[in-house]
Amino acid sequence: MTTSAPDIEEAGAVLAAESARFASFGWMRGTSGNLSVVVSRDPLRLAVTASGHDKGELTPSDVVLVDAEGAAVAGGRPSAEAALHARVAALTGAGAVVHVHTVASVAMGRRSPGGIVLRDLEMLKGVGQPAHDVEVTLPVIVNSQDMGVLGDRLEAARDPRMPAVVVAGHGLYVWGDTPRQARHHTEVVEWLLELELTER
Amino acid sequence: MTTSAPDIEEAGAVLAAESARFASFGWMRGTSGNLSVVVSRDPLRLAVTASGHDKGELTPSDVVLVDAEGAAVAGGRPSAEAALHARVAALTGAGAVVHVHTVASVAMGRRSPGGIVLRDLEMLKGVGQPAHDVEVTLPVIVNSQDMGVLGDRLEAARDPRMPAVVVAGHGLYVWGDTPRQARHHTEVVEWLLELELTER
Amino acid sequence: MTTSAPDIEEAGAVLAAESARFASFGWMRGTSGNLSVVVSRDPLRLAVTASGHDKGELTPSDVVLVDAEGAAVAGGRPSAEAALHARVAALTGAGAVVHVHTVASVAMGRRSPGGIVLRDLEMLKGVGQPAHDVEVTLPVIVNSQDMGVLGDRLEAARDPRMPAVVVAGHGLYVWGDTPRQARHHTEVVEWLLELELTER
Amino acid sequence: MTTSAPDIEEAGAVLAAESARFASFGWMRGTSGNLSVVVSRDPLRLAVTASGHDKGELTPSDVVLVDAEGAAVAGGRPSAEAALHARVAALTGAGAVVHVHTVASVAMGRRSPGGIVLRDLEMLKGVGQPAHDVEVTLPVIVNSQDMGVLGDRLEAARDPRMPAVVVAGHGLYVWGDTPRQARHHTEVVEWLLELELTER
Repeated sequence: MTTSAPDIEEAGAVLAAESARFASFGWMRGTSGNLSVVVSRDPLRLAVTASGHDKGELTPSDVVLVDAEGAAVAGGRPSAEAALHARVAALTGAGAVVHVHTVASVAMGRRSPGGIVLRDLEMLKGVGQPAHDVEVTLPVIVNSQDMGVLGDRLEAARDPRMPAVVVAGHGLYVWGDTPRQARHHTEVVEWLLELELTER
Repeated sequence: MTTSAPDIEEAGAVLAAESARFASFGWMRGTSGNLSVVVSRDPLRLAVTASGHDKGELTPSDVVLVDAEGAAVAGGRPSAEAALHARVAALTGAGAVVHVHTVASVAMGRRSPGGIVLRDLEMLKGVGQPAHDVEVTLPVIVNSQDMGVLGDRLEAARDPRMPAVVVAGHGLYVWGDTPRQARHHTEVVEWLLELELTER
Repeated sequence: MTTSAPDIEEAGAVLAAESARFASFGWMRGTSGNLSVVVSRDPLRLAVTASGHDKGELTPSDVVLVDAEGAAVAGGRPSAEAALHARVAALTGAGAVVHVHTVASVAMGRRSPGGIVLRDLEMLKGVGQPAHDVEVTLPVIVNSQDMGVLGDRLEAARDPRMPAVVVAGHGLYVWGDTPRQARHHTEVVEWLLELELTER
Repeated sequence: MTTSAPDIEEAGAVLAAESARFASFGWMRGTSGNLSVVVSRDPLRLAVTASGHDKGELTPSDVVLVDAEGAAVAGGRPSAEAALHARVAALTGAGAVVHVHTVASVAMGRRSPGGIVLRDLEMLKGVGQPAHDVEVTLPVIVNSQDMGVLGDRLEAARDPRMPAVVVAGHGLYVWGDTPRQARHHTEVVEWLLELELTER
């Protein structure tokens, strides 16, 4: 285990910048949502944004180092959701996880509780899917306060082709290789949800 | 009573920054809305944003010190609504009160004049409510220009579990322990209203 | 007639700042809209934003001095609409006129071509109207490229209680004593239109 | 052929600034969309934004020089869509082409797959059309990954009076004499689409 304090501060600076961006879009209202980046794979360690702060005002030190169970290794108090970030990273091999609360994701989760079917959209290429002829479903899972239960649901429901899951009544989990790719996947998924929400 | 001029300026600086934030969201169009922070509890004194100014352009001195009846103790002319701020602070123990005019709050007040029922939403945790199984009602009260009448309605209608009330045809009152917590409660309540507004 | 070049530059600086603000809201897309301020009343002279420029990129010199007919007295080419600005200033005594193209104004003009009826809204106080019990109509007039015709329609339709008119298929004209008051009236009228647009 | 490296950097700086503007509107989510400017007409050479980057974070060197077939002459990897930019420039004589992914364009393409009929809107003047009595159709073409096919569809469908085409399930192509005019055309077309989207 070689993760040093400077590594964590550096990760914290990246997460603070990404958080401020998402907050400016209105996707992290209140103190909602959290972001993470994998800083070591074996053993699994993630830097996760600290809980309870305004996500537009994070500093590089507002970060917690957690293990594969989401327990704090260094830094302050992680959100309970850190455990789900760690599970997503372990399950998918993602290097970064974004969890945001967008109105469109919760609204579409209500309209399509069985999953949001997407097809024939160029924007699907932004999450690695074909733009034509292939139906892709963005899974919607039932919310839980138990991260084990929520993780089981995510694992059971996720489509390996789609780096995102909607949690009903809650928001979005999205992942990517890097914080920047996770950002782009998040923007693409949210765009798709905003599009579907325009359907009458 | 030990509230000094520097205290008030400091409070004014905080309120100016919070106002500029809300104005940037379009929640304080024209010169609408006002914010306050409790600067002394006994006797009750609040710093309230001065009336008639653009809420995106306040300076630290655009603030009025008012008493429990909303009457000016120092500074310029308070809004008549200062009396309601003071009453909310007295009634709820809040340290800060936000009053904004959002389109979503007035639109939802029209659709649900008897109160806006919320349930099974993670975002409810942002106002201290359970995310599952429990129905919480955001009260809607009838508007009045008489702050005594409006305060009576707020007192009668408010749900102690919910730090906010919608005033029909008018906007939102939201409160919290501090200006930052009141901001977060406001963002959460507005998010919930924007979500409900997507219902067809 | 004492309007000097410095006066016009000063007026141009104010108009540039106001334009940049409205442009940031998306209300002056393309090069649409124009703003004016009265710089002398007798004879009537208005500084009007120059035509054809991006309204988010105006400089203090992107301004034209026009007379009561909207003809250039100094500076570059005024928009044909300068004549309507001058007529509004003469007709209403306003010191500043705002003309913006907002989606909500054109959408509501389509839904309510006979005028947009407003009632029981606190926000009406922001345009000097009572918040209760009194119905106020925001007039909608038919568009024309002939500023004389359009001015006649505005004069015939306007409600002296309401400092604004919707031009169908076109946008908003709003006025006030000063550029800041005209801004606030514009924000209030647009807020009211956005609210009405949420009606299903 | 006299296009020099400084020319390309200069074009890259313009494209980076225009991209950042469009990205701030949410019209280039993920890494979507691309912009181009003609740097030489004979032979046809365009500077096109480099593929795969965040469109809000481009630098002046994130640009590729391409020929009439969209093949790279200098710089990195162009998007496949560079070929369509070149074809639009050749076909229309445009000096700049904007391709953005807006929610409104895809939503309206779904509602009106045969073309979006516009009429009696002042904003049409922003794309050189009459504001009264004349019906103009914004063409909608079927999407393809084959730029030859997509270009044939654009050529067959385009209305010479309208500097824009909607690609169904994809986004907008818009053009103008200069990057600034292409920007203004894009803003105008998007405004028109957002207006039509408010129809119930």
